[in-house]
Amino acid sequence: MTETTVQRPSGRQPDQLRDVRLTRRYTKHAEGSVLVEFGDTKVICTASVVEGVPPFLRGKGQGWLTAEYGMLPRSTGSRMNREAARGKQGGRTVEIQRLIGRSLRAAIDLDALGENTIQLDCDVIQADGGTRTASITGAWVALADAVAFLQEKGLVKDSPLKRAIASVSVGIYQGVPVLDLDYPEDSTADTDMNVVMGDDGGIIEIQGTAEAEPFTEAEFGAMMALAKKGIGELNRLQQAALAE
Amino acid sequence: MTETTVQRPSGRQPDQLRDVRLTRRYTKHAEGSVLVEFGDTKVICTASVVEGVPPFLRGKGQGWLTAEYGMLPRSTGSRMNREAARGKQGGRTVEIQRLIGRSLRAAIDLDALGENTIQLDCDVIQADGGTRTASITGAWVALADAVAFLQEKGLVKDSPLKRAIASVSVGIYQGVPVLDLDYPEDSTADTDMNVVMGDDGGIIEIQGTAEAEPFTEAEFGAMMALAKKGIGELNRLQQAALAE
Amino acid sequence: MTETTVQRPSGRQPDQLRDVRLTRRYTKHAEGSVLVEFGDTKVICTASVVEGVPPFLRGKGQGWLTAEYGMLPRSTGSRMNREAARGKQGGRTVEIQRLIGRSLRAAIDLDALGENTIQLDCDVIQADGGTRTASITGAWVALADAVAFLQEKGLVKDSPLKRAIASVSVGIYQGVPVLDLDYPEDSTADTDMNVVMGDDGGIIEIQGTAEAEPFTEAEFGAMMALAKKGIGELNRLQQAALAE
Amino acid sequence: MTETTVQRPSGRQPDQLRDVRLTRRYTKHAEGSVLVEFGDTKVICTASVVEGVPPFLRGKGQGWLTAEYGMLPRSTGSRMNREAARGKQGGRTVEIQRLIGRSLRAAIDLDALGENTIQLDCDVIQADGGTRTASITGAWVALADAVAFLQEKGLVKDSPLKRAIASVSVGIYQGVPVLDLDYPEDSTADTDMNVVMGDDGGIIEIQGTAEAEPFTEAEFGAMMALAKKGIGELNRLQQAALAE
Amino acid sequence: MTETTVQRPSGRQPDQLRDVRLTRRYTKHAEGSVLVEFGDTKVICTASVVEGVPPFLRGKGQGWLTAEYGMLPRSTGSRMNREAARGKQGGRTVEIQRLIGRSLRAAIDLDALGENTIQLDCDVIQADGGTRTASITGAWVALADAVAFLQEKGLVKDSPLKRAIASVSVGIYQGVPVLDLDYPEDSTADTDMNVVMGDDGGIIEIQGTAEAEPFTEAEFGAMMALAKKGIGELNRLQQAALAE
Amino acid sequence: MTETTVQRPSGRQPDQLRDVRLTRRYTKHAEGSVLVEFGDTKVICTASVVEGVPPFLRGKGQGWLTAEYGMLPRSTGSRMNREAARGKQGGRTVEIQRLIGRSLRAAIDLDALGENTIQLDCDVIQADGGTRTASITGAWVALADAVAFLQEKGLVKDSPLKRAIASVSVGIYQGVPVLDLDYPEDSTADTDMNVVMGDDGGIIEIQGTAEAEPFTEAEFGAMMALAKKGIGELNRLQQAALAE
Repeated sequence: MTETTVQRPSGRQPDQLRDVRLTRRYTKHAEGSVLVEFGDTKVICTASVVEGVPPFLRGKGQGWLTAEYGMLPRSTGSRMNREAARGKQGGRTVEIQRLIGRSLRAAIDLDALGENTIQLDCDVIQADGGTRTASITGAWVALADAVAFLQEKGLVKDSPLKRAIASVSVGIYQGVPVLDLDYPEDSTADTDMNVVMGDDGGIIEIQGTAEAEPFTEAEFGAMMALAKKGIGELNRLQQAALAE
Repeated sequence: MTETTVQRPSGRQPDQLRDVRLTRRYTKHAEGSVLVEFGDTKVICTASVVEGVPPFLRGKGQGWLTAEYGMLPRSTGSRMNREAARGKQGGRTVEIQRLIGRSLRAAIDLDALGENTIQLDCDVIQADGGTRTASITGAWVALADAVAFLQEKGLVKDSPLKRAIASVSVGIYQGVPVLDLDYPEDSTADTDMNVVMGDDGGIIEIQGTAEAEPFTEAEFGAMMALAKKGIGELNRLQQAALAE
Repeated sequence: MTETTVQRPSGRQPDQLRDVRLTRRYTKHAEGSVLVEFGDTKVICTASVVEGVPPFLRGKGQGWLTAEYGMLPRSTGSRMNREAARGKQGGRTVEIQRLIGRSLRAAIDLDALGENTIQLDCDVIQADGGTRTASITGAWVALADAVAFLQEKGLVKDSPLKRAIASVSVGIYQGVPVLDLDYPEDSTADTDMNVVMGDDGGIIEIQGTAEAEPFTEAEFGAMMALAKKGIGELNRLQQAALAE
Repeated sequence: MTETTVQRPSGRQPDQLRDVRLTRRYTKHAEGSVLVEFGDTKVICTASVVEGVPPFLRGKGQGWLTAEYGMLPRSTGSRMNREAARGKQGGRTVEIQRLIGRSLRAAIDLDALGENTIQLDCDVIQADGGTRTASITGAWVALADAVAFLQEKGLVKDSPLKRAIASVSVGIYQGVPVLDLDYPEDSTADTDMNVVMGDDGGIIEIQGTAEAEPFTEAEFGAMMALAKKGIGELNRLQQAALAE
Repeated sequence: MTETTVQRPSGRQPDQLRDVRLTRRYTKHAEGSVLVEFGDTKVICTASVVEGVPPFLRGKGQGWLTAEYGMLPRSTGSRMNREAARGKQGGRTVEIQRLIGRSLRAAIDLDALGENTIQLDCDVIQADGGTRTASITGAWVALADAVAFLQEKGLVKDSPLKRAIASVSVGIYQGVPVLDLDYPEDSTADTDMNVVMGDDGGIIEIQGTAEAEPFTEAEFGAMMALAKKGIGELNRLQQAALAE
Repeated sequence: MTETTVQRPSGRQPDQLRDVRLTRRYTKHAEGSVLVEFGDTKVICTASVVEGVPPFLRGKGQGWLTAEYGMLPRSTGSRMNREAARGKQGGRTVEIQRLIGRSLRAAIDLDALGENTIQLDCDVIQADGGTRTASITGAWVALADAVAFLQEKGLVKDSPLKRAIASVSVGIYQGVPVLDLDYPEDSTADTDMNVVMGDDGGIIEIQGTAEAEPFTEAEFGAMMALAKKGIGELNRLQQAALAE
């Protein structure tokens, strides 16, 4: 980790996010609907309000939040099989949608939500690395809009939103810690870590994986510092989007 | 059918299409990628070139074209279950993707395609009636772009495209034949018919369904006249999009 | 379409149905059970009365009618895989059973049926073209017997049957419009169209597909005239069967 | 077992088979096609000749025989769910088709069959008890016809048929051993046993189940004697059918 | 069957069981948990008490008992695919778990069980022939412990246990009837028969299969005599285990 | 995090592992077979050597390692449904087996493995928290045995093992960082983190999840220190087991 400069394929600085855009009301039916773009990665995040809760929660007076994730077959460089046609969701899909659900549940007070369910759907229409972190970041904005809808309709009194949540990937690319890996970086990185944090600086989720060689605690620390910086910027972009 | 005027929810004339937009190169990975909009109905149509053909065609020197269709869970007014999570495609999905595949195969000379497969994917991101007709119309433009890619790469010599294909729905709404039904019309129409035609005026596919009461041959004739007019306009929009 | 004579493999005239037989009470358990034969195509059609309705209709005071379709694995020239063993119904099966269900629902007043469900099953024991049209034609007779059963048992007062429904295929074979295609014709026809009509001459469903080349409106008209003639004959055979 | 007379619902003697009919060439496509009737139990048994063998046998110079079983949804008193629609075969179906396959493999010399597969399909169109024993009995006749087809075509030289196989159920009904149980007996019998034997008197398969109370060796012996008598009669009916 | 001596691979006498061990309380969560070993065949049998009964029994005041069976992927000489990953249980698995369930239901008075369900799970951790007979023998001990639990908790008053049940395989190996086949014997035996009996000498289930050639009644008789002897010994081992 | 003492349910110190046992050659068929126990958590880990590699790696001269995970239905306090019977693996199962596979691939040089596949199976027979960390720790020992098998058979020359891998969970329990959570701790912990490290101190995988409230970097640091200590001890136990 002595090397401190690196030529990123995109020309970005090691601590520089891609261009991030959050477009609210992207589709018209969902209570929250956001197109999130992390550079060329584009994900449609919708938050649907469904009355009632799953059977295991009925009568407990609390709500539920769950998430599903998918990729359009040709969101990627070569076409993937359609999971609906194959008859099952792949392991990577399941892993990602569980991460999104867990992360966003940390954003909301399920007791204050009442017996309502919020169903998040994150569908990747174009993939260029970081689809799960973009999904979490965009889904939070969609969630905020769905919560506003519930309040406007008088279905909840006080906002059940506890904090803003955003996520970014960090990694070691050619020996240098970098922020927000795109696909060319991600596919050759030594280490890849996805971090989910609240706007209060609390850590919600860390998933770090050594792709080829183990990483050190020092590398971990450097990556965490980048993640904290990136998530701070994403939180500001989320607030700006909601202020529109 | 004595009534000749009708107040359409959208204020359109009986023989008036919705605003139709065809945006090429909508996503970056697919050889053909088109966002097609029929008013508020929005479908991403991609055409992927895959080398080789399915086993049942191997060694015959001809190509293949197939299609899949899906809807994002919240493309509709109330959220639908995700087919990948349910573990199977529903009957309506299967019916539509078979229609898209059959229709587009009429556009292409599979012998001239060589042993290549073109996989069409039509994914509805927002639904407001007519998703299958929009899909066919947009998929043809994506197909034309994929064919151009094959020619540029020298993978086929002569264009295997035989004709342009477009599709529109017609129906009897409040007793009056109307063109290009949107969801408020579609959900209350007496009769709904989807027509696929070539730009040479030939009929590729007709699927007419009496929703409540049978329809007459006279009604059928009036609907066919509207369909022919609408498809002519769609063909011009397809050519204009390709000319850009 | 200048050619007006054609040598059909079966030696039939262009406007001639195959021998059609409708055998009621073919199996003993079902409330309606009909063996329908269109020449060598043989389908067992049963109508089962099931108390109650599916969840989405409960408490609305109306009934439901649904249909399923299957083929015995060796009903065809070469053995097909058994769908139950493969673990899913194929696209063609799904498409056909949806057509049967939609068509037969046009025969019945679901409000007058009360909260009862009629389940139609059409199982092909021998296939020689036209299995879906034979199924619809036979299923209507089975339905009529099931309705009679409901009336005898006092489960419905007035007959919910609104009209007789029959179906036949028409096509362009060697340039000539022909009625009721058998397998040798069907597998080489230029165009294939299935028509469902009521005995009042109303059109219930039209599904026309150009197999190789688009067809013209003139061809369509000629095919419709044949279909109307054929369905008239099928209606008479249905009434004769019920009169036995 | 002191009681020696019993009033069977059908009025049959304890050692009396139902009327058994074996109709060859019942459908036209299969190399062997037999409708077998044990009273009101009716099963279509087809034997299909398929070139080649499954992967695990390739290149070993021997053939294969396998069987599948199904019931039409309304072959029974109340409608069963269609297994193809449910997406899987039930446990009873799997158990029966494994029994049929094992039993019929005992009828044939797989080495003499060459690298050919015989696929048996037994589809119940009307059930009244004993569908598995009727299936085995009818499937053997279909198998014999398929073997004759292979010999006629010169695909095998010497007949790979080693023996005739038939099957019958026996049970203890109201304390008395009876032969060939129909549904009213089967559903209330104390013990139910299915026996498969060759025409050489050898036992191929015995499956005996105490429904409520265990049975004794003496009861077992009495049932075996009945089975042997019944299978002898079935063997004669099989030979008579083949002699037609 | 003139030969009366045979060299068994294990060196056992023809009428000799393998070493059988029954270890109760093998895992800590289940109400009954038994490791059963028939030589190198090792199966974990658990009996779980679940309140309530399946829908088809609700309100009838009786209980239910059901069984499932599985093998760890590398319980066998070469690794088998994991059924959970393949998405379905194989035919052999289904057949075995139905046998276990039927057999153990003969051990218990479902009326005396009240509206409770006992779920048996037999999971093979090491296979060396006879996994189904070991499963039944071990499951009965687990069942007895679960019944004792129900009595201790006051959930049932009188024991619903009607009899002890055990099972063993017998076969013809190199022309000689032998007891309790291990894998080297099982894979080459001429005939294989699984017998389930009660400690009262009643027969619960017989499943005999001729692997290559049919077997005779004399062979059957010899095998039954061995089975009776073996099951008597297994019953004593079961009682000894429960006495600990 | 001011509180520094805690009463753990097991009476352990905050930095104390449970009793860990690694029993090699636990079952006889697998090339590597280990029973790993972390207190009452018991997992059978087998490593199976399979010749050849999956299609996507064929001809590249490198090997593959993959893992599957399962739980016996009654390994837990209340019975879970059997995944094989439900027809699919749950999301948690998929997530865990992907983690095991990724982690163990970091232990091995796939190039040095040649075109061989090592299939790891981790099956939980008794669960008391930490099944995934026990699985990884035990699977590494099974892997080492399978590698030794490959070397003995001359299938690989130099050991492809790059490092020892072990895993442990850490968490914040009642405000205090603790090592190796058992089920009573795990189900009420504020934060749960699974760490996989090599014996060279390199980090292979970190998965940290805030259950209720986000955690801080200081808490993260304290947990990492505990994990490092625990993994060091596990590495020593692994080496001791292999030395036996």
